[in-house]
Amino acid sequence: MIVARTRGPVRIVGTGLLGASIGLALRALGVDVILADVSPSAVRLAIDYGAGRAAAADDRPKLIVVCVPPDLVASIVAAELSAYPDALVTDVASVKLGPLSELRELGADVSRYVGSHPMAGRERGGAVSARADLFVGRPWVIANHDDIADRRSADSVIEALALDLGAVPVELDAAEHDRSVALVSHVPQVISSLLAARLSDASTSAVELAGQGLRDTTRIASSEPELWVQILGANAGPVVDILHRYRDDLDRVIAALDEPAAPGARRAVAETIADGNAGAARIPGKHGQAKHFAQLIIMVPDKPGELARLLTEIGDAGVNMEDLRLEHSPGAQVGFAEISVIPEAEERLLAELQVRGWKIAGAFA
Amino acid sequence: MIVARTRGPVRIVGTGLLGASIGLALRALGVDVILADVSPSAVRLAIDYGAGRAAAADDRPKLIVVCVPPDLVASIVAAELSAYPDALVTDVASVKLGPLSELRELGADVSRYVGSHPMAGRERGGAVSARADLFVGRPWVIANHDDIADRRSADSVIEALALDLGAVPVELDAAEHDRSVALVSHVPQVISSLLAARLSDASTSAVELAGQGLRDTTRIASSEPELWVQILGANAGPVVDILHRYRDDLDRVIAALDEPAAPGARRAVAETIADGNAGAARIPGKHGQAKHFAQLIIMVPDKPGELARLLTEIGDAGVNMEDLRLEHSPGAQVGFAEISVIPEAEERLLAELQVRGWKIAGAFA
Repeated sequence: MIVARTRGPVRIVGTGLLGASIGLALRALGVDVILADVSPSAVRLAIDYGAGRAAAADDRPKLIVVCVPPDLVASIVAAELSAYPDALVTDVASVKLGPLSELRELGADVSRYVGSHPMAGRERGGAVSARADLFVGRPWVIANHDDIADRRSADSVIEALALDLGAVPVELDAAEHDRSVALVSHVPQVISSLLAARLSDASTSAVELAGQGLRDTTRIASSEPELWVQILGANAGPVVDILHRYRDDLDRVIAALDEPAAPGARRAVAETIADGNAGAARIPGKHGQAKHFAQLIIMVPDKPGELARLLTEIGDAGVNMEDLRLEHSPGAQVGFAEISVIPEAEERLLAELQVRGWKIAGAFA
Repeated sequence: MIVARTRGPVRIVGTGLLGASIGLALRALGVDVILADVSPSAVRLAIDYGAGRAAAADDRPKLIVVCVPPDLVASIVAAELSAYPDALVTDVASVKLGPLSELRELGADVSRYVGSHPMAGRERGGAVSARADLFVGRPWVIANHDDIADRRSADSVIEALALDLGAVPVELDAAEHDRSVALVSHVPQVISSLLAARLSDASTSAVELAGQGLRDTTRIASSEPELWVQILGANAGPVVDILHRYRDDLDRVIAALDEPAAPGARRAVAETIADGNAGAARIPGKHGQAKHFAQLIIMVPDKPGELARLLTEIGDAGVNMEDLRLEHSPGAQVGFAEISVIPEAEERLLAELQVRGWKIAGAFA
């Protein structure tokens, strides 16, 4: 049996998807977990799922994890710090500087508060969707600040929690965290929503020409408005800083395309695309590497089991697949699998797949 | 043997990826294909690949397909119309109104010109990457205009070509085509490039937090600057119309986030996200349906064959997978497969996968 690094009792306030998932994972390690929520029925549901037990009057939690919507974080953390003067308190909100400032304004004892941000990807669900595995392999940001009483000890407690949940701890100070998530998460949400909004009054014949590029670019535009109002409001400063610079760049493209024949217009457009190339190249791919893979695009008939057969045959060919994307073709009973492999394996895989009768719709080094 | 609908000879001008792929597909159907390119070595290469034969002095092509970069389309089409007064001429450029206007200015006989736009997804490669299957299942826009002499006959020739290549013919007039692709392809390219450009001077710790949302939103930002300068320049009007409206929306979000506590600010942000929801819902999913699937997120150990095993076991469970996305977790030797299934199949698949030992990191209806 795996021994928990985390010493309980751990009190979880807010038993939605994140809170209940943390509870499930800690319970699986034998940690004593206390569940609390403003809704008594939410607590009972999470207890039914095995995420922990009800609170008792003599509870002395060592660690409190506040898992409530961003708007409520500061007030709940302050209340917990004051109710449990021996406990270390953390939260899981996706913004870190705002709650810290609010806590200071509220006069809370922030020497026992360290913020967390597990980048678990999804923020929908509730306890019914909770999974002990939710955090496995995800970055877990530990947001430091200067007023933590015993920073090394506090960090090690949060790090133990992250490791117990299978997450990858990453230390960042609160301001740097907020600037970072503004760039990699909050601004992309705004940009994607604004782009998707342009489709709302488009002609049907236009949206029917939509390809994979548009699908990818607008995928996150399906996110919940309620949650994003809170996140964007709480991180408005860093987000709007980036949006101002984004608008300056947009203005340059608009000026160039308003007069596409003017001197310098082509150069402005070329630089926009080239700057995008440079930025995209900085995003880590699989296992943090930059992407330098060859791609094969393979036609996959739309019948059950065909994709499984393709992947099995790629495995049989002894080729390790680095990435896989599926593309659907509007109106056609066929899909495409874009397989990424190391460049050295491309020709061999191409030959093997053709021998086995797969149709190759593209091959790119 | 499949009989070609297309009657040759077909002359292809420009033997890059698209031209050579059209040649390969037509040759496979036994059509006489003549290849021409400004570069003699490009023609010889395409002939070596089996995409057609060299031109001869007495060629009398019935159909000419111009497959050159957007900037050159009008001048080459005009030259072909004049050199072959009995032939119907089409092209494959991703912009349709500009070349048509240029042809009229050049005094070309546009009564024998019908534009095409095969939405084949990729525009990189050259003859070396050409595939007879490149167009299978992809929309092939036939761009009509008022000066075509025998529109029914012209359309049927282009439709036959599209069908011979396995593509799905879609008729649109040139202006409507250009507005449509501005919306679903050209503007998303600009937006994605501008977003990715913001990463070029970002801190390493920030880009290391990048998740799937940023990866998807910036995937097309890796496109070629040279090609996009031509496309955006040629379709500047429709693109900039949309960008102006996009900037108005962006300004509203910026104003709201500049003063997030002001009356109406939260509402403006909520409406931005909600408008994005509405737009994203209009994009056709698999087989043109709107997306109403349940999602399971399954942990996949990063070992060869694991994903193939997962898909095989999903097939064994008798569940048809509607979509599949892979997510990589920076720094972790594990990935996640997001499987979409019809909602009725979700619970059963969840149970089957858990019995077989798969870890489920999320389940969403």
